[in-house]
Amino acid sequence: MSLVVVGSMAFDAIETPFGKTDKIVGGAATYAAYAASHFVKEIQQVSIVGYDFPKEELDELSSRGVDLSGVEIVPDKKSFFWSGRYHMDMNTRDTLITDLNVLGDFDPKLPEHFRNAEFVMLGNLLPRIQSTVIEQMNKRPKLIIMDTMNFWMENAMDDLKVTISMVDALLINDSEARQLSNEFSLVKAAKKILTMGPKYLIIKKGEHGALLFHGNNVFFAPALPLEDVFDPTGAGDTFAGGFIGHLARTKDISFENMKTAIIVGSAMASFCVEKFGTERLKEITKADIDARLNEFVQLVNFDIALA
Amino acid sequence: MSLVVVGSMAFDAIETPFGKTDKIVGGAATYAAYAASHFVKEIQQVSIVGYDFPKEELDELSSRGVDLSGVEIVPDKKSFFWSGRYHMDMNTRDTLITDLNVLGDFDPKLPEHFRNAEFVMLGNLLPRIQSTVIEQMNKRPKLIIMDTMNFWMENAMDDLKVTISMVDALLINDSEARQLSNEFSLVKAAKKILTMGPKYLIIKKGEHGALLFHGNNVFFAPALPLEDVFDPTGAGDTFAGGFIGHLARTKDISFENMKTAIIVGSAMASFCVEKFGTERLKEITKADIDARLNEFVQLVNFDIALA
Repeated sequence: MSLVVVGSMAFDAIETPFGKTDKIVGGAATYAAYAASHFVKEIQQVSIVGYDFPKEELDELSSRGVDLSGVEIVPDKKSFFWSGRYHMDMNTRDTLITDLNVLGDFDPKLPEHFRNAEFVMLGNLLPRIQSTVIEQMNKRPKLIIMDTMNFWMENAMDDLKVTISMVDALLINDSEARQLSNEFSLVKAAKKILTMGPKYLIIKKGEHGALLFHGNNVFFAPALPLEDVFDPTGAGDTFAGGFIGHLARTKDISFENMKTAIIVGSAMASFCVEKFGTERLKEITKADIDARLNEFVQLVNFDIALA
Repeated sequence: MSLVVVGSMAFDAIETPFGKTDKIVGGAATYAAYAASHFVKEIQQVSIVGYDFPKEELDELSSRGVDLSGVEIVPDKKSFFWSGRYHMDMNTRDTLITDLNVLGDFDPKLPEHFRNAEFVMLGNLLPRIQSTVIEQMNKRPKLIIMDTMNFWMENAMDDLKVTISMVDALLINDSEARQLSNEFSLVKAAKKILTMGPKYLIIKKGEHGALLFHGNNVFFAPALPLEDVFDPTGAGDTFAGGFIGHLARTKDISFENMKTAIIVGSAMASFCVEKFGTERLKEITKADIDARLNEFVQLVNFDIALA
């Protein structure tokens, strides 16, 4: 079951209270593809990079089954670059540098063989670019999920609402859910957002876990309590990649299976933050993932005898 | 199985973004007793009130099986009074007034028939008062749990450490855990605190749920996502009362049963915040509690097929 992943492939330079990197490979679609590649082998990547994006990284993705024929390589421009510094709580960060470079020209044209994909993940991008991708599909995919951010709520709300109305599941964080809905209560926010088009809403709360809303149902997945969060960059994209990777593997988009998919996404995100960049996502094995999933079972499993 | 509850019985005046009360009945031991009374009938209350504490409230507690022979009534002084104003997020608040009144004289003397209790809950109080109660027990109870707060970490840390070393389970919030341990990571904080005496540590994170640590085990219980949090006052004491109420009813202090007890405590806290003061805790029935517990099962229940 093929999965189209759309989003940035980029360089990041990251400072945390615990360390600092030079330019390393990042980008929403990079993290999502590495995460999803642990579950599905037909990932169709849609992105844009400059002449400076490392060939070894592209080869590594190819070797994991990621089809890069939708990745445009611009010969005379640099790749998107973001630099940021995390605060002690690792939930807040300051952006130091944003160099759009090639991303400013991103106008994705899906290769013909991408246009029948059953699963589509739209990473955070200009909403109009996200909707363009949906319009290029030959038939309605089984599931389209999208990420976005507060910046588009402030600068492109009309376009954003159009794109949101076209997808099945929206993934945003708690402050974005409040901003999009003008509701402080996340339950009220979810009810309002679910009238805007998506049938599923996932609210990511970082170290405080994630909530899945669907109709009147709600499911909560914790984040795994970790001794050290080394680098949170890409955790949300990794979560999304693990989530849709599990759904594409199982071809089951029931609410019950979405709950499992959220746990899978949370498990993948818990690996992501253990090292800088995509390093952990490359080195983990199926046995590591299964052990981590079992930790989630232990973490939330309890018996209630309603006597 | 009798349960001793020690703590304040008081008046509160509360302002939230959604409403405001005059003086209403509050206090850690009041909330805990109401919560626990849904599970056990032999609650032995240890507290101090002034001439102004309403007789109807004492009668209501008695009718629920709360033995008030450990509650000193001071005829010429007023009850403890606290007034506070909550911010929009309902997790932060400003104290407007603290009138200690009778609480400044609190020197609990346990009635002889309280001194064989198997379960003891020490609400937030001067640590030296909490340890005094433990010293008065005829034999080591099956389980002693205690709450405390940052104020004692700043003003009575030596006494606090002594008291903490005497109890089986410590209940504190996330910022208190960080302050007590000098560790930002809650996992590291828990490891350090578990070397200070308690075998169990519960870290309360308000709307973000609660964590239970024991040895190398960790369990996470979410808070129920609510449309409206009307008044968070007493939620932590209600959580503690539900937690120890379930343990005292089942007489089982295994880690497995503690997990269930945390869900019970979370369920009781979710009722507490739905109205001002203790109102919801008085009106709910066993059927309401069972339905709420089932909501928690639905909230976190998922299937992982490790294939």
